Amino acid sequence: MNLYDSLLKYKDEGYYPMHMPGHKRNTELLTMVNPYSIDITEIEGFDNLHRAEGILKEGMESWAKIYGSKETYYLVGGSSAGILAGISACTDRGDKILVARNCHKSVYNAIYLKGLRPVYFYPGRIKSVGINGSIPPGEIEEYLKKEKDIKLIVITSPTYEGIVSDVAGIAEAAHRYGIPLMVDEAHGAHLGLFSGFLQGSVTQGADIVVHSIHKTLPAFTQSALLHANGGLIKREKLIRYLSIYQSTSPSYLLMAGMDKCRELLENRGKELFSVYYSRLAEFYLAAEKFKNIRILTDNIVKTEGSYAFDPSKLVLSVKGTGSTGKELYDELLGSYKIQMEMVSGDYVLGMTSIADRKEGFDRLLEALSKIDDQLAGNGKEKQEEEEMEFTPPPVAMSCEEALDSPVRSIPLKGSEGRISAEYIYLYPPGIPLLVPGEKVTENLLSKMAVYKKQGLTIQGMDDLNADRIKVVEEGLKI
Amino acid sequence: MNLYDSLLKYKDEGYYPMHMPGHKRNTELLTMVNPYSIDITEIEGFDNLHRAEGILKEGMESWAKIYGSKETYYLVGGSSAGILAGISACTDRGDKILVARNCHKSVYNAIYLKGLRPVYFYPGRIKSVGINGSIPPGEIEEYLKKEKDIKLIVITSPTYEGIVSDVAGIAEAAHRYGIPLMVDEAHGAHLGLFSGFLQGSVTQGADIVVHSIHKTLPAFTQSALLHANGGLIKREKLIRYLSIYQSTSPSYLLMAGMDKCRELLENRGKELFSVYYSRLAEFYLAAEKFKNIRILTDNIVKTEGSYAFDPSKLVLSVKGTGSTGKELYDELLGSYKIQMEMVSGDYVLGMTSIADRKEGFDRLLEALSKIDDQLAGNGKEKQEEEEMEFTPPPVAMSCEEALDSPVRSIPLKGSEGRISAEYIYLYPPGIPLLVPGEKVTENLLSKMAVYKKQGLTIQGMDDLNADRIKVVEEGLKI
Repeated sequence: MNLYDSLLKYKDEGYYPMHMPGHKRNTELLTMVNPYSIDITEIEGFDNLHRAEGILKEGMESWAKIYGSKETYYLVGGSSAGILAGISACTDRGDKILVARNCHKSVYNAIYLKGLRPVYFYPGRIKSVGINGSIPPGEIEEYLKKEKDIKLIVITSPTYEGIVSDVAGIAEAAHRYGIPLMVDEAHGAHLGLFSGFLQGSVTQGADIVVHSIHKTLPAFTQSALLHANGGLIKREKLIRYLSIYQSTSPSYLLMAGMDKCRELLENRGKELFSVYYSRLAEFYLAAEKFKNIRILTDNIVKTEGSYAFDPSKLVLSVKGTGSTGKELYDELLGSYKIQMEMVSGDYVLGMTSIADRKEGFDRLLEALSKIDDQLAGNGKEKQEEEEMEFTPPPVAMSCEEALDSPVRSIPLKGSEGRISAEYIYLYPPGIPLLVPGEKVTENLLSKMAVYKKQGLTIQGMDDLNADRIKVVEEGLKI
Repeated sequence: MNLYDSLLKYKDEGYYPMHMPGHKRNTELLTMVNPYSIDITEIEGFDNLHRAEGILKEGMESWAKIYGSKETYYLVGGSSAGILAGISACTDRGDKILVARNCHKSVYNAIYLKGLRPVYFYPGRIKSVGINGSIPPGEIEEYLKKEKDIKLIVITSPTYEGIVSDVAGIAEAAHRYGIPLMVDEAHGAHLGLFSGFLQGSVTQGADIVVHSIHKTLPAFTQSALLHANGGLIKREKLIRYLSIYQSTSPSYLLMAGMDKCRELLENRGKELFSVYYSRLAEFYLAAEKFKNIRILTDNIVKTEGSYAFDPSKLVLSVKGTGSTGKELYDELLGSYKIQMEMVSGDYVLGMTSIADRKEGFDRLLEALSKIDDQLAGNGKEKQEEEEMEFTPPPVAMSCEEALDSPVRSIPLKGSEGRISAEYIYLYPPGIPLLVPGEKVTENLLSKMAVYKKQGLTIQGMDDLNADRIKVVEEGLKI
């Protein structure tokens, strides 16, 4: 069956989307005519994205107003294109940048493309759930004192799991050293748009902010925005790279969807957000009463030393219940037709938006309540296994050097000490455990064994079973 | 008014699209439900473009069968993404590549990104119309003899104006030297799909072929394909770059549109192409009778020493009639509501496809007949001005070096001899007259003066009026 027919079939199968895109397939809220009737190219009166002077320029300016940014650019290549362009615009080949290790793959791609020298820093941990925590401004400042010639700082906030960092504090620290801050806010396009949510990075002083409006707002998949602020960003260079990394035939469907999203926010945003927010609040109130499943909250996040939490993400942990994230995920999908966004070792992740219907929250709550009761009675004793610390693998050569060296595939088992020529990461959320040029460690191998046991998807390796790894032929290095 | 509403309004204004996209907004042929109801992300059962194993893989394999290619990859970033990926996959930093000067901007972008050393060759000319001709295999062979260490050959065939090169001959020459050939066939996705048209580059031995299926086939804008063939392409490196240059949240709408297009070709291709082709034949038969407007044909192209012509492009020249392309373009748009694809000095370009309706050809023919008569009687004497030869500007430094040097904006007038830090090109079709690192010549300045007089769009320069040019501060070079 072809993709279109499969999508049509799926549409009527009654699965509720607790995942991206943020429009949630809510056709009461969002309609569009037969897209073939309005999909055009750069003809008279419809402007040119790469040289916007008319209707596209106006649209981008209206988006800038919504977020309070100086300039906003449409991204028809998704946040990936914005991250490549933002990093490329702030660096020259071989420059040193300060990067949070839990950044998205596209950040690593930019590092590779420009042959950058990344200095990684590792965010804190939220052990009760086993996820990355926020990034303390003080820690950034330490790095800036130590490391000279940092040209750019790149962080992700909120994370896939909703952990928000103190962007204002980090921006202050960065600017004290005259260094621009780029925030991958792909998962936080809704921040700052309603009083109930935290402020967005644009108003917190970030110089470049990237928003996947398809993730937490009602826009089509692959639609995103890049915001540029302050005097540290070379606009001309930014625009050059935006044109390089994006199609010269940008999709008017995607851009029309961005515009519809903007109009919805302008005309009905307040109303939609307040209804959405109260449903969310009710959901948390009920979910916090579960006996086994624990839902992540701002309190927990703060208690564990992180800055803040974005409640639009539903992080449901079964850690210590004797069950696994995969079991919860499969149960929700199989027995309740609720498609969650992501599953990890001990938790599942759901994403919500203003396009969610009451039905969605109700169904999820009911399903979780039942599962929570079963967990209580499932006989498995709760073993509260201590989470294994992840120790950063040592860097032996640059990512570029490793990927462009002669390589050989060897069994993963016994590859300790070899220099990887592959990424190894969990997908989702697509954060590398190992980057090309780094050495395989025993700690990494044990981590991977655990993930495999949990049935999680390990990606990046050529060998889809993740039993073999490509390493640099050290004898033959170019 | 927002973009969506403008597109709705435009849809009902009765303009006939003699331009991309190739679906021609033909809603009798192509329908899709409310796209919000089927736009998803990588959920269970819907595969992952960057690691295709299921429905997306099957779709790409079916496309490969259609073109007879070994592998085919979806491009949700348009042909631009495919060209960046293809060139990046075949080169290492600083490599030398052989490039037809009339390549698309994205080829120049790839050269910049990888710091490549391009050896440009200039296609022939078709003087009666004033467009680039085809590329003789013999000329390529000459370069391959002269230039050592060429890692890749990049050509465009067909050109925007439909000029097709002898890809088989060029591929043979390239392969004699063990060098891969990449063909930007963005404007020829329909080639080889019907006996009336020429063969496509995949079957002619090209190693990488990029197809904008949104240009000449009925698919959404920004949808394209990359085909890989033969043993000279490192698949792994190609796949790496396809993942780098494309969104990690690929649009399922665009991919569903690609699949619908494929299914249409499989189920009704023969029928649709034969109807389309006979309409096209009738159109040419009638248009060749015009007294003033000349339509480009395979005969003319061959007589002027080029290889072949793709009749799906309607190239209508008013050269020597005392009128200009702009006048013809404006007349068709203003008086007949026919939106053409592109206008250049002496001609307008129309694009056709299997989605064109009889009405479209009839309206255009009727309009052109009337205009042709008026031209005859318009009193302006036909001055057959000789077209000014374009002399290649000398290269002073690499594109990368120039773009990353300190620059200064000076008046274009009097900039002869300075090293440009900007592209200067006509858009469309977006082919550079001057590339960063090349010296401004008097010949270039005269060319630009002519284009300006003709009211054509000169792009690439920071100064939208194209009166100032950014040049390298030669004193301050890094």
